[in-house]
Amino acid sequence: MYSQEIIDGIVEKAIRSQSFDREPQKLYRPIGYMLGLGGKHLRPRLCLTTYNLFSDHIDDHIIYPALALETFHQFTLIHDDIMDNSPTRRGQPTVYALHGTSNAILSGDAMNILAYQYLACAPSHLIGDALKLFNDISLKVCEGQQLDMDFEDQALISMDEYMGMIALKTGVLISGAIKMGALLAEIPEAITDALARYGMQSGLGFQIADDYLDTFGDEKVFGKPIGGDIVNNKKTWLLVECMHRAASSASDKKKLADLLKLDESHREEKIKGVRELYVNLGVKEDAGKAIMECYDKALEALDEAKLSPEGRERMVILADQMIHREK
Amino acid sequence: MYSQEIIDGIVEKAIRSQSFDREPQKLYRPIGYMLGLGGKHLRPRLCLTTYNLFSDHIDDHIIYPALALETFHQFTLIHDDIMDNSPTRRGQPTVYALHGTSNAILSGDAMNILAYQYLACAPSHLIGDALKLFNDISLKVCEGQQLDMDFEDQALISMDEYMGMIALKTGVLISGAIKMGALLAEIPEAITDALARYGMQSGLGFQIADDYLDTFGDEKVFGKPIGGDIVNNKKTWLLVECMHRAASSASDKKKLADLLKLDESHREEKIKGVRELYVNLGVKEDAGKAIMECYDKALEALDEAKLSPEGRERMVILADQMIHREK
Repeated sequence: MYSQEIIDGIVEKAIRSQSFDREPQKLYRPIGYMLGLGGKHLRPRLCLTTYNLFSDHIDDHIIYPALALETFHQFTLIHDDIMDNSPTRRGQPTVYALHGTSNAILSGDAMNILAYQYLACAPSHLIGDALKLFNDISLKVCEGQQLDMDFEDQALISMDEYMGMIALKTGVLISGAIKMGALLAEIPEAITDALARYGMQSGLGFQIADDYLDTFGDEKVFGKPIGGDIVNNKKTWLLVECMHRAASSASDKKKLADLLKLDESHREEKIKGVRELYVNLGVKEDAGKAIMECYDKALEALDEAKLSPEGRERMVILADQMIHREK
Repeated sequence: MYSQEIIDGIVEKAIRSQSFDREPQKLYRPIGYMLGLGGKHLRPRLCLTTYNLFSDHIDDHIIYPALALETFHQFTLIHDDIMDNSPTRRGQPTVYALHGTSNAILSGDAMNILAYQYLACAPSHLIGDALKLFNDISLKVCEGQQLDMDFEDQALISMDEYMGMIALKTGVLISGAIKMGALLAEIPEAITDALARYGMQSGLGFQIADDYLDTFGDEKVFGKPIGGDIVNNKKTWLLVECMHRAASSASDKKKLADLLKLDESHREEKIKGVRELYVNLGVKEDAGKAIMECYDKALEALDEAKLSPEGRERMVILADQMIHREK
């Protein structure tokens, strides 16, 4: 087993080595720009780390499928940013803000296909299964994004519905990255299942932590303005939970409804008011608990995979990075 | 070898049998709507017909990959309609006009992934090659669409550039459908190459005929308003050729430039003026010749495939349908 630094280095090198300096430039440049914005590269790192638990034979047959996961993820971000009207990402203009909607649609489409090109580097005897897994993951991510958009038009979302949505939108790809690593290492199904459950719980925790940090994070560390979700009435874990709690008190219910009506011109007042409500109704505290619950479930599932102590340690560190995050 | 009616029936049945009545409905319904709009279903018909030249064993392993080609094609149309601001297709509202841009982007993305799901039904020993071929085709189609958009901002396009663009945007997928049928029938490379060239020339002829019909077609037969390309200053075969011809006469050059400046409120005047110029400068006549040239080259390539007389006859009929079209 290689160190995490070596695995991470392989991922970074693979991403950096992709050149998009080709014609038509308007199609390929935005792809290079998007990949160049950086990020945690969680999905290829999870894929390669999982693979490396069982095999030290790391070459392009596994590196490229890992890269496919990141490329697919970044493609979805390009299109999500159009749908969400998000002008910035990681402090930089989003692709559509820089190149226009048409170009962002088409470059995203090309990036989705590029992901399949990378996936096609999987060993030939595994390519059918890898393709089916990748398709299954990808379609579910689209379903998750659709539900996320649907929720914006619905007055009240149950916590089960919310968790189902983030399972699709975020959990499936993180869990799927682990499944892909396991598939390419050809490990037994029972171990894959346990690791996939570890991935799903880590992914859920990752998303709730993302919701939490958007409201209670440190702007300098988080890398984007705090409170964006509040301003946009985004149905996050916090808001979904808060809506249910506020429903049992007429005054809290009115307070929340009034705050949600405030527009961009009352940005600071809205953020301050909603944060106070989250604190007073115990939503902030319980979000922290929900995140820890995901972490605990992830480690429980991990134990069922019966890894070596070094292997387990490695996956615990990755769960920590996903869940105990500040950015 | 089955009759063309049987092959066409298999395609129609496969398309009709896909159900998109599943959750989230906002994601899947537009896909069903798009596939329900009809169309010539040229690509799966070409794929299955090519396969059937060499094998009568037609089952889901070949029908679904053929369906993948149509699904990919229709996905590109959903996204193209957004980029082109086209409110109608086949006399019906386009997906984005009906469901909004965000939904059209996401349903298109899901449809692209669905195409890969269908492709994954290819026989397992061929799936790697089928995936590589499909990726290669798909990426080139995106490149073609990008060039098409790029051309809108360029003053003068050479005929070589134009032909290169339609080869990518239209030719590659038609030729690729034939390659997919040949790949799945596992026929020798030399025959595949000849049939692919037949497909490329038919595809080029198909596109120039499309340009021609948009300007000189019969509205009732063509199914959409005649003159749309002229109104939008679309760089078609006719306009590209006309610009070069008009350049050699100051008065023609001015006449064309003035016509191109007319906006939607002078629609009829613009269409009439540009059509006259096309006729007077011999562009209309030569477009017809260019289409016939593609047809001749397609049949030349077909002869190199050395098919049986029945097989050749079948492919000639398909070339006729693609090139000698009125709609």
